[in-house]
Amino acid sequence: MKVVTCLSPTNIAIIKYWGKENPVLNTPLNSSVSVTLDPTLLYAKTSIAVDQSFSATRMWLNGKELSQLPSRAIAVIELLKSLSGDPKCRKMHFHIVSENSFPTGAGLASSAAGYASLVYTLAQILDLHIPLEELSVIARQGSGSACRSLFGGLVRWDKGTDSASSKAIHIADETSWPELCAVICVVNEKEKETSSTFGMQLSKRTSALLPFRTSKIVPERIEAMQSAFLEKNFTQFGRILMQDSNQFHAICLDTQPPIFYMNATSQHIISLIHAYNNISEDGEIRAAYTFDAGPNAVVYTTRAYLEELVQLLQLVYSDLKNIPFEASLSLHFQSNSKALRPQVRQLGDSMRNPSLRKGIRRLYISCVGSGPVILDPTESLIDVRNGLPRKLPLKERGTHSMGTRRSAFSIGLGAVVALAIIGSFFMRK
Amino acid sequence: MKVVTCLSPTNIAIIKYWGKENPVLNTPLNSSVSVTLDPTLLYAKTSIAVDQSFSATRMWLNGKELSQLPSRAIAVIELLKSLSGDPKCRKMHFHIVSENSFPTGAGLASSAAGYASLVYTLAQILDLHIPLEELSVIARQGSGSACRSLFGGLVRWDKGTDSASSKAIHIADETSWPELCAVICVVNEKEKETSSTFGMQLSKRTSALLPFRTSKIVPERIEAMQSAFLEKNFTQFGRILMQDSNQFHAICLDTQPPIFYMNATSQHIISLIHAYNNISEDGEIRAAYTFDAGPNAVVYTTRAYLEELVQLLQLVYSDLKNIPFEASLSLHFQSNSKALRPQVRQLGDSMRNPSLRKGIRRLYISCVGSGPVILDPTESLIDVRNGLPRKLPLKERGTHSMGTRRSAFSIGLGAVVALAIIGSFFMRK
Repeated sequence: MKVVTCLSPTNIAIIKYWGKENPVLNTPLNSSVSVTLDPTLLYAKTSIAVDQSFSATRMWLNGKELSQLPSRAIAVIELLKSLSGDPKCRKMHFHIVSENSFPTGAGLASSAAGYASLVYTLAQILDLHIPLEELSVIARQGSGSACRSLFGGLVRWDKGTDSASSKAIHIADETSWPELCAVICVVNEKEKETSSTFGMQLSKRTSALLPFRTSKIVPERIEAMQSAFLEKNFTQFGRILMQDSNQFHAICLDTQPPIFYMNATSQHIISLIHAYNNISEDGEIRAAYTFDAGPNAVVYTTRAYLEELVQLLQLVYSDLKNIPFEASLSLHFQSNSKALRPQVRQLGDSMRNPSLRKGIRRLYISCVGSGPVILDPTESLIDVRNGLPRKLPLKERGTHSMGTRRSAFSIGLGAVVALAIIGSFFMRK
Repeated sequence: MKVVTCLSPTNIAIIKYWGKENPVLNTPLNSSVSVTLDPTLLYAKTSIAVDQSFSATRMWLNGKELSQLPSRAIAVIELLKSLSGDPKCRKMHFHIVSENSFPTGAGLASSAAGYASLVYTLAQILDLHIPLEELSVIARQGSGSACRSLFGGLVRWDKGTDSASSKAIHIADETSWPELCAVICVVNEKEKETSSTFGMQLSKRTSALLPFRTSKIVPERIEAMQSAFLEKNFTQFGRILMQDSNQFHAICLDTQPPIFYMNATSQHIISLIHAYNNISEDGEIRAAYTFDAGPNAVVYTTRAYLEELVQLLQLVYSDLKNIPFEASLSLHFQSNSKALRPQVRQLGDSMRNPSLRKGIRRLYISCVGSGPVILDPTESLIDVRNGLPRKLPLKERGTHSMGTRRSAFSIGLGAVVALAIIGSFFMRK
């Protein structure tokens, strides 16, 4: 029995993808750019086994076997099989076990990491030595933004002119801007959101502004954003980031009926970040937000302001208690290690709003990360003796003590948990 | 002593004005269209006296004398004086007393009715026999949307090519669509809003979508909207109304920093109206919302669905109690006169949300109204014996018993109340 286990990162769009050119092939109306996050923090982990004794392809997601494979997963498997030169490949059956690191209901991207993980692990087990760009064409057909999770650092997803040319392009490595950090604010919410697939269709059909955005605005912004990243110009990066996030939500509002993905806490985070930048002594931007198709904020900042930003968020949104957070291993991050500067504390005090306290549930703090990683067999989710998922103690993550730095790896094996339905498309751009 | 008293209506933009071409002259980036509401319901009432004994022009707004005249009021007075052939006019001083019918803090349009009232009354006292279109050029320089309040029914404000051509054009009379009604939902809010003047400047400077809206989208929508109104096609009217309201707020979101004028109740009203239209048996639109630069909704409907709509709003937003309302005299409107249809009651029950109960504070229900009205001297706000404001008992309106139909006139003389700072520009398009 051959088993391969990989870890794939999630990615956060910094120029947003919204609207499908071809809904079946997942080709987009416009190109997009993303930053890959640390694969050891927010990841999909997939083990795939292949053996002649298997009579069918089976899939377990977050501890539960699926009664039937998602059609997009079937499509992706067949595409990869067809790329293999091995004729025996056609008859192969796989056991696929996949889990996400993030807790249930966080409203975080799952399909991007999930499909990147599926495609990357399948390519390993099939010994497909094809370029990652080519692999990204297949990942894209699983979930659009998954194609960008196959590379680390800065990645552009080219719209392309057909399916073969609609692929991810690696722009910069994860080491090219080590000071850049992302703080993912998991916002408390009650109401259900509109799925991105449905929202994109509706916007494409009804927004009068969307064609102008895709044809005129996005191409220029992509150029400017790539330059900002390569020049490590955070002010330029942050300005475009916020503009593009707001414009994506403006397109949602211009949709009929309008779609509101942000809630009162999201809006308040926007005000807080602008206020925080307004007290910057040199006029440079210190932090910048982006929102996907949900209320959670991803706030980018640089290492120099990271601790201050986290403390500010804890002050404003947790009723004076800390908000639990989990950080990239490589950050060596400690909150509460120093007192807030007086003007930042004053800002935090002035922005507190009784109705929005407890507005943020938890934080993930990540540096820029690499693409998928192949793990050691000891990390496998599959028991080689029977080809079935290993029995792992199922502990609920995300409830541990506040303000501690955790290693995602240390939890990875012992307490991997729920969520991340591959084939679901909520909250992805 | 010569005294003239007039009543001017407010108007609700159905294709929105957003962005000033020339901020001093109040010329707009795009043409706009509005419906004039009943001047006896939501109005500015202005008495102006002129007498040789007056040593200076003085102004009282809502019972209080202004320490100095707003610069826009001075500009408007001088422009009108210059149009008079009478050379004595230059030395004239006026006593201007103006009051609004709507209660303090309602967040309703005040400057449009206020400046229309000022300009119209001054034209009467100066015996200026000039066309209303020409007068609208002057009203526009007081407050942009005031130009549209000089006519009843459907009014277009042409962007024009210069100050003289940026004026209001009368498209249809107030009698042309008697079935059309507007339900103004005064939404409870706590936070302060961004002034429209400031918001427009910010959008003009920073929104990448605004130039496309003004140049490409608005001209087509104005044509389509005028046709819908003239053909009394409510489905067409309602569809464009909602699209344009949403697009205006999308432009606000595309502004940096983004502007949010709508709150959670506003968003919920949007969902309710779409859900209400979804249960329409014939697929036609029954009600349609529009939001200006604030959280209040104006919901247009036709006479046939008015009572049902008001009852639905009362059911959803008042914790099962009625919401107080005030209606146009000519509507002969009675709420609770019939039971809600089962599917409408079911909708109302399913849409109730504990956090948004009491989301609407009161309703104004208006038919389409006429332009300014000259009142009888007995209605004067000025005492002819001394040229000073008449002492009127100041009663707080808007707190009377629920669900009663009130005549704005009956309250007008006895209990005229606060608000409506002429020269303030909040909440107008």
